Amino acid sequence: MKNSESGFPRKLFSGIQPTGDVHLGNYLGAVKQWVDLQDNEHLILSVVDLHALTLPQDPKELSENILKMTATLLACGIDISKSILFQQSQVYQHTELAWNLSCICTMARLSHLPQFKEKSAALKDVPLGLYIYPVLQAADILLYKATHVPVGDDQLQHLELSQDLARMFNRRYGTTFPLPHALVSGEGTAKIKSLRNPLKKMSKSDPDAKNRICLTDTPDEIVKKIRKSVTDFTSKITFEPEERPGVSNLVMIHSSLSGKTTEDIVKEVEGLDTLQYKSLVADCIIAFTSPISQRIKELMEDPDYLRNILAVGTEKATEIAAGTMEEVKSKLGIRLLSTVQDKFSRKRFL
Amino acid sequence: MKNSESGFPRKLFSGIQPTGDVHLGNYLGAVKQWVDLQDNEHLILSVVDLHALTLPQDPKELSENILKMTATLLACGIDISKSILFQQSQVYQHTELAWNLSCICTMARLSHLPQFKEKSAALKDVPLGLYIYPVLQAADILLYKATHVPVGDDQLQHLELSQDLARMFNRRYGTTFPLPHALVSGEGTAKIKSLRNPLKKMSKSDPDAKNRICLTDTPDEIVKKIRKSVTDFTSKITFEPEERPGVSNLVMIHSSLSGKTTEDIVKEVEGLDTLQYKSLVADCIIAFTSPISQRIKELMEDPDYLRNILAVGTEKATEIAAGTMEEVKSKLGIRLLSTVQDKFSRKRFL
Repeated sequence: MKNSESGFPRKLFSGIQPTGDVHLGNYLGAVKQWVDLQDNEHLILSVVDLHALTLPQDPKELSENILKMTATLLACGIDISKSILFQQSQVYQHTELAWNLSCICTMARLSHLPQFKEKSAALKDVPLGLYIYPVLQAADILLYKATHVPVGDDQLQHLELSQDLARMFNRRYGTTFPLPHALVSGEGTAKIKSLRNPLKKMSKSDPDAKNRICLTDTPDEIVKKIRKSVTDFTSKITFEPEERPGVSNLVMIHSSLSGKTTEDIVKEVEGLDTLQYKSLVADCIIAFTSPISQRIKELMEDPDYLRNILAVGTEKATEIAAGTMEEVKSKLGIRLLSTVQDKFSRKRFL
Repeated sequence: MKNSESGFPRKLFSGIQPTGDVHLGNYLGAVKQWVDLQDNEHLILSVVDLHALTLPQDPKELSENILKMTATLLACGIDISKSILFQQSQVYQHTELAWNLSCICTMARLSHLPQFKEKSAALKDVPLGLYIYPVLQAADILLYKATHVPVGDDQLQHLELSQDLARMFNRRYGTTFPLPHALVSGEGTAKIKSLRNPLKKMSKSDPDAKNRICLTDTPDEIVKKIRKSVTDFTSKITFEPEERPGVSNLVMIHSSLSGKTTEDIVKEVEGLDTLQYKSLVADCIIAFTSPISQRIKELMEDPDYLRNILAVGTEKATEIAAGTMEEVKSKLGIRLLSTVQDKFSRKRFL
């Protein structure tokens, strides 16, 4: 048993919803970081389908999207010999721990979360899931005793809730969970903006699909979207995110995908006008996404393979999750199984 | 597949929290009914420890109380060859279904429940569990596709929530759940009042333990509690619940435990004053509770036996619950397992 909240081995948890295709913003802001981290970190990565259910989903689409997200992560370089990749709903301990945490959480604590306030303000009927999903998120993280969570700025408040719940549980029942910290993004992580409104971030919830480039977009779609991307009336290519967000966003994408610095790129393309540069950027994106897109297509043709990948992840994640829940249930006083009964029960079950 | 909400086989679900000892109010208002029902009904009975966690519990006490409630139900006549008796937290599908239901429930629907309004009004920090436990209750019932639920008046609104959630799920994903109905109490069910204030019901949450007689109370305790029970200044024994709630409550207890009608009792004890009658009632209670109390004591001396009883229940309940959740997950689009992977996964797991 650990006797301090800082004595836990370093472990990373992250989740991604299986809704819609992964776009360049997701890739450069999160997926690439995971791929880079997995050589030196203990990374646990979940396709969080239970979170997707907080909004209405078409069942066929959702099940297709779970496989597609799995294929996409593999195509991007997630390696299951290094990381654990699994489907959240296959590890039942997530909802078990979420219930236990909801018993130590107060309503006020949830109501004050800015994301909830924002999202619920526009709704007539607020779904309960929208209110309580940060508690499931906390369970996702604490179940694996993750010490670090790669998160965007918009998720910091939710991570604070996870810390609070871990602290409250530890205080009441003895140290069980580390306090999970935000993992500050490395240099390779770029914030990619919408192609239609470079003041907003590239987003999969934006109804205008031209705001984003997905890894599975065809070369034609990519050329069209980049050509129609909003820039200003100056023809010269510069990197000035504040003054010229549109063209700078293209330079940022170009830089992130090519590995060149923005300075080098600006020098290199001197003399090109915006239209010419857009064509260059489109080519660079196509060169990058084509093999990934091709690999996603191949993987999607073998759904059994993808299901087996997820089954391996379920097994590995369950091993950790089951250990945590045994500990949690013992501490709560609801784990009664004696050695005798464990054996008895196991014999009857198998 | 059933094609109508009324085409489900009759099945009863009920739950009891493992908090505190079972008193005569619980016994005559609920437990006795279950025992009577189990010969002719498919009864599923759960020791709902996850609900107990919505209020702070001492872990050691809770785990003792789970065993004690199991012992008490067995001692009262629950027969596991007829009924399914299990510990809620051992069947993980309860929290899984609760999450799925919380995604179709709205916040407004929960906030209007009178029990929540009442209980939360007095609290500074409202625990989230107090707000969302009716959704877990709905999951408890729907998981077993229960068609009938023996409930007290105070739970009718929660049963309506279960019906609403079943209806909403069925509408969205196709008929899956029956709409559970309240099971109207039979003749054998009596509402027992507090011994200290016969206008309120006998309650385990009342801080004054003299308000109730527990099945495990010693003869001495029973004699004292009945002697101190609040009656009026008329010495004659009559059964007039409205005008003379105190003495009528004693007659009701006497009638329920002896099987005699209240009329017969009143005739029989003509001439006794209140004190003499109290002594008679105490004797009657002791005669009834002594063997039960003795049996609880014996069962508590063999915790492994009790754990095995619960393990048998877990197995039976899980069989039903797992079937429901397979169906629910398929309909939601989160069940991906193909035959191939089922085999693969099973081989690796076992």
